[in-house]
Amino acid sequence: MMRDDDREGPARARDIRTRGFTDRVSVEQATRWIDAHARLLPDEDLDSVGAVGRILAEAIAVARDIPPCDRATQDGYALRAGETAGAGDYSPLIFTLENTSGVLPIGAAALIASGAALPTGADAIMPFEAAQSDGTVLQVFGAIAQGSGVEARGQQAGAGSVLIEPGRSLRVQDLGLLSVLGLDRVRVVQRPRVRLIVAGPKPSPAGAAHDADGPMLRDLVRRDGGIVSPTAPRASTRAAMVAAMAGEPLDAILVAGRTGTGPDDEAPLALAEAGELAIHGIAVRPGGSAGMGLVGDVPVILLPGDPLACLCAYELFAGRLIRRLAGRNPDLPHSVREVEVGRKIVSAVGSVDLCQIRFVQDRVEPVGSAEFGSLPSAVRADGFILVPAPLEGYAPGARVAVRVYPETGAIPTRS
Amino acid sequence: MMRDDDREGPARARDIRTRGFTDRVSVEQATRWIDAHARLLPDEDLDSVGAVGRILAEAIAVARDIPPCDRATQDGYALRAGETAGAGDYSPLIFTLENTSGVLPIGAAALIASGAALPTGADAIMPFEAAQSDGTVLQVFGAIAQGSGVEARGQQAGAGSVLIEPGRSLRVQDLGLLSVLGLDRVRVVQRPRVRLIVAGPKPSPAGAAHDADGPMLRDLVRRDGGIVSPTAPRASTRAAMVAAMAGEPLDAILVAGRTGTGPDDEAPLALAEAGELAIHGIAVRPGGSAGMGLVGDVPVILLPGDPLACLCAYELFAGRLIRRLAGRNPDLPHSVREVEVGRKIVSAVGSVDLCQIRFVQDRVEPVGSAEFGSLPSAVRADGFILVPAPLEGYAPGARVAVRVYPETGAIPTRS
Repeated sequence: MMRDDDREGPARARDIRTRGFTDRVSVEQATRWIDAHARLLPDEDLDSVGAVGRILAEAIAVARDIPPCDRATQDGYALRAGETAGAGDYSPLIFTLENTSGVLPIGAAALIASGAALPTGADAIMPFEAAQSDGTVLQVFGAIAQGSGVEARGQQAGAGSVLIEPGRSLRVQDLGLLSVLGLDRVRVVQRPRVRLIVAGPKPSPAGAAHDADGPMLRDLVRRDGGIVSPTAPRASTRAAMVAAMAGEPLDAILVAGRTGTGPDDEAPLALAEAGELAIHGIAVRPGGSAGMGLVGDVPVILLPGDPLACLCAYELFAGRLIRRLAGRNPDLPHSVREVEVGRKIVSAVGSVDLCQIRFVQDRVEPVGSAEFGSLPSAVRADGFILVPAPLEGYAPGARVAVRVYPETGAIPTRS
Repeated sequence: MMRDDDREGPARARDIRTRGFTDRVSVEQATRWIDAHARLLPDEDLDSVGAVGRILAEAIAVARDIPPCDRATQDGYALRAGETAGAGDYSPLIFTLENTSGVLPIGAAALIASGAALPTGADAIMPFEAAQSDGTVLQVFGAIAQGSGVEARGQQAGAGSVLIEPGRSLRVQDLGLLSVLGLDRVRVVQRPRVRLIVAGPKPSPAGAAHDADGPMLRDLVRRDGGIVSPTAPRASTRAAMVAAMAGEPLDAILVAGRTGTGPDDEAPLALAEAGELAIHGIAVRPGGSAGMGLVGDVPVILLPGDPLACLCAYELFAGRLIRRLAGRNPDLPHSVREVEVGRKIVSAVGSVDLCQIRFVQDRVEPVGSAEFGSLPSAVRADGFILVPAPLEGYAPGARVAVRVYPETGAIPTRS
């Protein structure tokens, strides 16, 4: 599970407080570390009602044909298509009306509801619009083709065919199909249980320090399929952090705050004491003071306390860990839109910059900068872009892949 | 609220059972009816933790500057940038180290943590990497510019500025910002309470009739911001449907099943009895037997019982109603991708066809057809397209807008 070559040596043991980061590992190295240390969680059995969004752990195959027999796909009259040949508006053909779901006599038609089994002998459904009944006989005003309005046995899915592959995030229609098949239970990947340790925020110049990281991280973990354990300890001393990390083992630990180079930034030291600090300092802005390591075999991600840096480091590192544990697509979950840059985007060479952007006349403009970003910039933004480490930004006209934040809704207007 | 010209006359009172639809209203007419009868719900006050995805009902403005004073954006030493001029690796400059957050003496530097208020007189933060301290004096090995590492008072947002406009679906960072601002409560649009009446399914040829519509509709209503009232009555007779529609008034009623032209398709007649049936029969496939009307001033949507038709009619009609009531963007919530057609897509002239598609080598291929579609086709599909009524489909090479189903996840692999 753990490989020595995945441990980034230089940052591991050194106290960088009041010294500063000298070597930062690349985003790619940090990503590789996460991928190497995120075990996929075991399966569990679940009521299929309520399983929407869960990750399917086994293939769903159909035991028998769907539909199990030839059946009507519309309301109308079941009959033999060949017997309607020659029928027209001015030359209606007459059928006897039978009330049967067994064998249909020659020259007869039977009222049938959509979804019902075809009587033996019938091979088409005459729609109501093309016929007229007096309750005893049926006048038919047009010819129809064999198979019209009929769904053949097994047409939707043949017995034994796999309808849903494992690994899918279950969709509404998947659960509908499970209902149709009478499958009340379904095997899905367990949800990762995550301990969230709020080590910040530091006292702010304004006095009261409000924690923004805790609420944001709870929602993000939930979005990625995890469960935050209800007791989210606040721990701002090294001893308290060590104790919180060493609690009942869960599937992952996130620590928010105290990751920087200040004298009281003891989260990395606490992780080194409780387990091992594998990485501290990543070439990314914002969020470069993030770190990661292990307590036992439980991965721990250290997230910066500044809310925007915390958000960015969650998206790139912690979120990937949670999604991997949960069997989800580990990539960023945002929808991607390719858009042209409208106003120059500045980035630092040597770090991956996560730049908040907004759409202005369908082009992209920066909101704040990766260096001086702040939570309000992410609030004003429509999404973000990742500028790779070798680039110093994008000139107007360049095309970039925007990760789009969830829709901004409509402006309510009251009638 | 109700306008006579929005009521589609012909279908209203007529019993179309065993006769068939003659006039169907267009999707545009049905959409207009919904838009005219969906009142935006009132606001409510909510704990801001847990408000993610809710629709903001009032603007969020900041009462005072963010940050409230000039402050450090990184850990380091606060000093006067002008005094670092001339410093270099081989010509370090010496500063006295002060422990102050008040006035910084001339020639001094003070240890400062990211986020802390700048001492008066300081105008830049020297990073740890460019300085060396022995606890009494600081050696500085480089010059920095004024404002470096400093965020000015009000730089993130000035007092009184609006940070979030009403109508937004609250995002994770929005709630983080509310926390930063110390706002524990937030005004959001109420969630629509929806009564779901399961009128189907009809007995299937295989015997047991499993209801797929109820579970699917619960999840879809939740996706669109609504709450399904816990008692979802099953009602397959006209009297039972009338009673269920006339229960305690909620914000919307959905009826699943019994909308077709068969003898027992009594949902439209029940609606006409409980209130008024405004529309029955819409030029859309699948889902053309959908209808809508009012009980009192509560909109009622009749959805076909066939699971795929139910799903499609929900997406186009019921979902729009729920989203409008909830103050959300009324358009389909799926992300849209413009893709080229790889294999011919067949559609009927005169109806909007909702075609299930999948991506094959980044082009679009149909899965099943709008005429013979079935729930398994929607399970196999990656998304769907809407073919406008005047078109008979799309030839290979045409570009279409695909509404993409939620991501299919990754295939779990166990290490």
